[in-house]
Amino acid sequence: MAKIEICAVGGYGKVGKNMTAVKYGDDVVICDMGLYLPKIITFEEEGGCREKLTRDDLINIDAIPDDSVIEQWDKDVKAIVITHCHLDHLGAVPFMASDFKCPIIGTPFTIEVMKSILRDDEIRLPNQLKTLNPNSSMKISENITIEFINMTHSTPQTVMTVIHTPEGAVVYANDFKFDNHPVIGKKPNYDRLKEIGKKGVFALVADALYSSSNMKTPSEKVAREMLKDVMLGTENEGNLVVVTTFASHIARLKSIVDFGKKMRRKIVFLGRSLDKYVRAAEAIKLVDFTRGVDLVGGSANADRKLREVMKNRGKYLVVCTGNQGEPKSTLMKMALGEFRSFSFEKNDHMIFACRVIPAPINMANRALIEDKIEKQGVRIFKDIHTSGHASREDHRDLLNMLKPRHVIPAHGDMTKLSPMADLACEMGYTLGKTVHLLRNGQIIELS
Amino acid sequence: MAKIEICAVGGYGKVGKNMTAVKYGDDVVICDMGLYLPKIITFEEEGGCREKLTRDDLINIDAIPDDSVIEQWDKDVKAIVITHCHLDHLGAVPFMASDFKCPIIGTPFTIEVMKSILRDDEIRLPNQLKTLNPNSSMKISENITIEFINMTHSTPQTVMTVIHTPEGAVVYANDFKFDNHPVIGKKPNYDRLKEIGKKGVFALVADALYSSSNMKTPSEKVAREMLKDVMLGTENEGNLVVVTTFASHIARLKSIVDFGKKMRRKIVFLGRSLDKYVRAAEAIKLVDFTRGVDLVGGSANADRKLREVMKNRGKYLVVCTGNQGEPKSTLMKMALGEFRSFSFEKNDHMIFACRVIPAPINMANRALIEDKIEKQGVRIFKDIHTSGHASREDHRDLLNMLKPRHVIPAHGDMTKLSPMADLACEMGYTLGKTVHLLRNGQIIELS
Amino acid sequence: MAKIEICAVGGYGKVGKNMTAVKYGDDVVICDMGLYLPKIITFEEEGGCREKLTRDDLINIDAIPDDSVIEQWDKDVKAIVITHCHLDHLGAVPFMASDFKCPIIGTPFTIEVMKSILRDDEIRLPNQLKTLNPNSSMKISENITIEFINMTHSTPQTVMTVIHTPEGAVVYANDFKFDNHPVIGKKPNYDRLKEIGKKGVFALVADALYSSSNMKTPSEKVAREMLKDVMLGTENEGNLVVVTTFASHIARLKSIVDFGKKMRRKIVFLGRSLDKYVRAAEAIKLVDFTRGVDLVGGSANADRKLREVMKNRGKYLVVCTGNQGEPKSTLMKMALGEFRSFSFEKNDHMIFACRVIPAPINMANRALIEDKIEKQGVRIFKDIHTSGHASREDHRDLLNMLKPRHVIPAHGDMTKLSPMADLACEMGYTLGKTVHLLRNGQIIELS
Amino acid sequence: MAKIEICAVGGYGKVGKNMTAVKYGDDVVICDMGLYLPKIITFEEEGGCREKLTRDDLINIDAIPDDSVIEQWDKDVKAIVITHCHLDHLGAVPFMASDFKCPIIGTPFTIEVMKSILRDDEIRLPNQLKTLNPNSSMKISENITIEFINMTHSTPQTVMTVIHTPEGAVVYANDFKFDNHPVIGKKPNYDRLKEIGKKGVFALVADALYSSSNMKTPSEKVAREMLKDVMLGTENEGNLVVVTTFASHIARLKSIVDFGKKMRRKIVFLGRSLDKYVRAAEAIKLVDFTRGVDLVGGSANADRKLREVMKNRGKYLVVCTGNQGEPKSTLMKMALGEFRSFSFEKNDHMIFACRVIPAPINMANRALIEDKIEKQGVRIFKDIHTSGHASREDHRDLLNMLKPRHVIPAHGDMTKLSPMADLACEMGYTLGKTVHLLRNGQIIELS
Repeated sequence: MAKIEICAVGGYGKVGKNMTAVKYGDDVVICDMGLYLPKIITFEEEGGCREKLTRDDLINIDAIPDDSVIEQWDKDVKAIVITHCHLDHLGAVPFMASDFKCPIIGTPFTIEVMKSILRDDEIRLPNQLKTLNPNSSMKISENITIEFINMTHSTPQTVMTVIHTPEGAVVYANDFKFDNHPVIGKKPNYDRLKEIGKKGVFALVADALYSSSNMKTPSEKVAREMLKDVMLGTENEGNLVVVTTFASHIARLKSIVDFGKKMRRKIVFLGRSLDKYVRAAEAIKLVDFTRGVDLVGGSANADRKLREVMKNRGKYLVVCTGNQGEPKSTLMKMALGEFRSFSFEKNDHMIFACRVIPAPINMANRALIEDKIEKQGVRIFKDIHTSGHASREDHRDLLNMLKPRHVIPAHGDMTKLSPMADLACEMGYTLGKTVHLLRNGQIIELS
Repeated sequence: MAKIEICAVGGYGKVGKNMTAVKYGDDVVICDMGLYLPKIITFEEEGGCREKLTRDDLINIDAIPDDSVIEQWDKDVKAIVITHCHLDHLGAVPFMASDFKCPIIGTPFTIEVMKSILRDDEIRLPNQLKTLNPNSSMKISENITIEFINMTHSTPQTVMTVIHTPEGAVVYANDFKFDNHPVIGKKPNYDRLKEIGKKGVFALVADALYSSSNMKTPSEKVAREMLKDVMLGTENEGNLVVVTTFASHIARLKSIVDFGKKMRRKIVFLGRSLDKYVRAAEAIKLVDFTRGVDLVGGSANADRKLREVMKNRGKYLVVCTGNQGEPKSTLMKMALGEFRSFSFEKNDHMIFACRVIPAPINMANRALIEDKIEKQGVRIFKDIHTSGHASREDHRDLLNMLKPRHVIPAHGDMTKLSPMADLACEMGYTLGKTVHLLRNGQIIELS
Repeated sequence: MAKIEICAVGGYGKVGKNMTAVKYGDDVVICDMGLYLPKIITFEEEGGCREKLTRDDLINIDAIPDDSVIEQWDKDVKAIVITHCHLDHLGAVPFMASDFKCPIIGTPFTIEVMKSILRDDEIRLPNQLKTLNPNSSMKISENITIEFINMTHSTPQTVMTVIHTPEGAVVYANDFKFDNHPVIGKKPNYDRLKEIGKKGVFALVADALYSSSNMKTPSEKVAREMLKDVMLGTENEGNLVVVTTFASHIARLKSIVDFGKKMRRKIVFLGRSLDKYVRAAEAIKLVDFTRGVDLVGGSANADRKLREVMKNRGKYLVVCTGNQGEPKSTLMKMALGEFRSFSFEKNDHMIFACRVIPAPINMANRALIEDKIEKQGVRIFKDIHTSGHASREDHRDLLNMLKPRHVIPAHGDMTKLSPMADLACEMGYTLGKTVHLLRNGQIIELS
Repeated sequence: MAKIEICAVGGYGKVGKNMTAVKYGDDVVICDMGLYLPKIITFEEEGGCREKLTRDDLINIDAIPDDSVIEQWDKDVKAIVITHCHLDHLGAVPFMASDFKCPIIGTPFTIEVMKSILRDDEIRLPNQLKTLNPNSSMKISENITIEFINMTHSTPQTVMTVIHTPEGAVVYANDFKFDNHPVIGKKPNYDRLKEIGKKGVFALVADALYSSSNMKTPSEKVAREMLKDVMLGTENEGNLVVVTTFASHIARLKSIVDFGKKMRRKIVFLGRSLDKYVRAAEAIKLVDFTRGVDLVGGSANADRKLREVMKNRGKYLVVCTGNQGEPKSTLMKMALGEFRSFSFEKNDHMIFACRVIPAPINMANRALIEDKIEKQGVRIFKDIHTSGHASREDHRDLLNMLKPRHVIPAHGDMTKLSPMADLACEMGYTLGKTVHLLRNGQIIELS
């Protein structure tokens, strides 16, 4: 009888660089291949040059997973599955995927983003890029079928991946939230989750990041309401309004655009990442922003566009990158006065439609930006946000629907993983037997 | 030329027991007369008996303001104005109002609640109780006219009080939020604020509690969306759902009732305070809950009703008092198993549609309740809430609309008051000259 | 070949009520039998009566461990070993020990305290009470020898317990710190730890409470220096000085007495616990306080003594119970004015030679006390304390000395235990194989 | 009758860049001229070049005080008094002092450090540098005498400055602590403080930074005990021990050297700042380190010396700069592997004899260093430190000794200043009358 092995390649430690491998017989499926951006930012702030980083350098600075632990599985890898387009889930693909002779599978949006990244970095991968729609399946070997279940998160077309084996299903649920009022896309496919649960789930790997939080994660609609209030319900006539958010958060961007239109302002998107994700979303017809939005892209154009904005600041809504205070982002340049033609003015509005991801480098960079613009008399509206990660009560619902034999919390170090282990134990699981706390590089054999 | 004096009688120290007196010539207006409940809870937990507390005892345990500082003004007090029905603004009226020979003025809902409190405590006050509608005025002496401006907060018919004097207006804005999507009632009357600002505001006394928070306070609609999600979007079939919130928060209760109806559950309100506030709201036709809700009231009836609930727990939504873990509240009794007929069961839902007001006694009591019900396998949903207090950017809007000559932050100790002072200084005021940080018992003369 | 089983009976969850059972063949040794006091305080604050609590009630309110999990081991228990005199390690003995037909073993001080507790509660246990000196051994069955290694902690004669079996030693290190400058007693016996490490340690159960703290826990000498500074280096002439600390912390009390004598004040100890622990320490000649200290004991005498103190407050140093704000402690009574003859006066000094143990009930009680005495103008000196629990770097030293095959973190829930698991993994252990995270009620079989 | 004016030039806002001006008649004394280093570090991390910064640039990035507010006092400035050698008190001297035609007065150590800074930066100031010993006086104009009272702080020869005027004394107490067991130098001169208090103090400007802390700041002796424990009481045989601390904290360095000698290790000081401050201390015969210490200084020599250390790491104690994670400090270079010849090894000891000064840039830099060296298996000992700033109870003692008519809290923004205002109000002062909360740029006239 075949057994199932699961390897915690990355993301079972400090947050970021997610990668999990599942082995059944001679078939291995890799779920996600992430990159931890703050390590690269730090590397650059020390004076390093990002472009020169090799695969081994990246492993060495903890930016991508160290996959030497699954070296002997390499030849058996049948697919690399990417659950969604966030860097901490797909950012290592350009550096690592070519080591595996197999296709990369993702939803249309995820694949679109990946192509764009590869194009930008001028990387050609030997791997085939395959799209699989949410709520669809694909057979990848005699024994293994991959199924994508439609899920909600802070970027579109996120899926839970089900690896169907003859021994039962392994569900990889990293990342997800249960959002019943998503601004874009459909609700999670609860029915299918329950069905799979009834058929028997062998193991669940799940995003435990916020499992310590005693609640249900609020819907994106809540963030939308907060945004609406701040954009439409404050005194901003005659002043420039600037919003920053995660470039891949198309639903959030949609809300911003919707309210921007209500404000009757010209909407300008500045920053290369915004350009990349929005174009990917439009390419697959998820949204149709460009009719109402001026998608400016990189630095040179931004300078010209900001000159226009300065002439009539009360008529513009600027949406830009840099919500975590990234050093070369558009917002950082605006704050530091690095655009020739732009400066903030007293009573401009600066809306952070995000939270600070609590890495010290982010906190320092955000503190710098806020300090700079506050000094210029700008009004700051912070933390207009709801999380994309499931909370404790969402996890309870998931466990109840899937009833997996084994539970493996993922996406963080022990302090993040252990609350989910605790929850599972409360619900009847046993630590060390049916709940497994892993660390990067650990392989576990389940039966 | 007459001058204006303002006395910080209470609430300019630890939170609670708000009371401010404004004197122009021989006319004094008292704004609010609050009580700080945690002091009484603590007193009872030490074994004291609440009913035996005299006015002086209450002053002594810091539960009500010490008004000896305005002793020489007593005879000049022309009105006691109550801005809204929260205990920290009106709870001291039964103990202190009779010292002043003047009417008590409030909105219909506020006065209705006050009558109910007086009835319950069997207190007869000599003062006349006068109602004044939001967005209305009343002349109370030759020189003084009181105006109520419609405002939003976490209880209905909250008003900003304008004391019109020949020298200009004194605006008492304690408590308030700027909510553009209130679930009950109208938006704040911004137009009137701007008008008064144009005519000239001499001084502003404002609720600085959350003035350190760099944002606009989210609308009650946000709490409504969160509630909706938790009530309609989780797996609770067959399980009892219990919600607790502030009894005076009629808008929140309305949302709970609305979603309870959607869940097709019988809705039961348990606890004396709920009874009191809901009846007050119905008396003035703010809401019409009783058609769909079983308003049970005190303990004996609760026991009987809970027996019913136990027989068919999946069909009921119980709304009860005790959101801060108050020792004799319905929820505390339910948690401790003090109702003969009731016990929680595994997978019941417990929703705290509130936050813990951060007094240590509250934190201890809430920890106790949560601990007890968690042990019984109940699912807990916490912090379904938005605040009723203005944040930094709301304050900026208020200051811009009113352009007062003098600013007096209220509602807290120096750590709460100083961020508002900071904001005012940023906007051009000068500490000690046009912004005034006061402590309980201090009188300031403005010109 | 015999195997070793370890049962996490209590203390592997919320802090408190420690109890671990170790089984080798037909021999079981129980290590500690603790009680979690805050649960009893809470029970009393709800109106319950402590004296009426039965063994089952206590289990039910989570005050003592639920030992039903080792029911089938009962007849094999050869010894109950108590590592030190703290309630969370010995407080359940009066309620649970009689179920086991075996002696109770502790150091002379621990046994002395236990006798005193049994006397006070008028409980007669069938078990023999045996003393074993630090750095001594005792054979308790053909296969098992118990050894006590001298250790430092916040109470005297704390030991690490070594259970020698034919398979190797099991070391129970709960609680401990590595203090090289203890104010009373000797340094930890590092030489013996290394010796045992060389001979082979099968398993280590260790106090992980502060294993997340990146440091070495400071010596008690540091607390002594802080105390000295506050007692001798502030302006307290003419004012009463009151100190409170843990009654069992004889070393801390010794420092207080030493500096009290330097201040040339009469030293008065008030409170029953102080009486109990000091008498136990004197009975075994650890200290000789009574020559310089007036050991007053319970309430009636306290009242009389405080009358004396009031007459000449500048000449007295009062040391009393109540450092966690316990409701009926001497300090709480002093703060609430419940002694007929005593009141605080302006500029009296109140020194808390402790930290608040972060249970919400403690925080609420301490907030109450501080509030009450601050209002009376008393000067407060807080947090004069160093911990009795090992930090991360002490744990590393312990693991290096013992080199155990298996590591079992104890004394807390997953958030407390997992940092020690992390440390062990860093040092080469593997979670689930050689490091084991347990929850109350779990039995693990090691080989 | 002449009045006294006090101008809050700098340090009455975000921490750092202290500068206060006191005017009596036609005589002005400037107390301190500080620089806020984190602003410069941030500026450099953005790619700026420190050397090119002009006086106006520095004002613009908030690194030094904006003294335009006292422009019309310029010609009347009779002395610039520097209380101690910390950058936030003297760092602006090279950029600003030449605007004033007057001498700069400091204790011998302070002046020695200043000379060294001027030499390094190749700046020649027109101002005369005058030394004044602690507990000495100097007449600076017909009406004004400056007196230095010996004080304790985290650097030697810190003084409280008394500005004697015909109207009474103005005491400038910024920074100070009351340390009765300083490791170097004498206790504070309490007798003189009381004498001056008796003669009449007109105003007190005091370091309020930690006035919210309910305690007496622990003595430097406490830090010494902690250090001793960590250096002598852990297993470090064969491993390198590295300590970092504030370069100007000569007393801390003395403890490190003392224990390093006990460890029989060769002691090496690396980093330019260490060189600077130690040489200054030796120049005035405060210490005599160089006999036992190898004072290496800058980078080139460090590389050579570290090569030696690598050959016999167990025999060395390295003391280096970089305790706040400064980007180009010796420690940062060691952590990043930027010395050709040096790398950390597993089980090396890294001792941070400091705390992180809570600016976000420091937190990010320290996180980076800790991360890097932890990955190399280094053991970290953090927070071996006691503060150099007075706590609430020290302030109370100071106010009791001086009994000033007016109190002006300094050294921080409103959240730091207001607790001291609160304390003063408790002691009978009145906010706005005898306690004054100022912001940068405000002038207050007292009488």
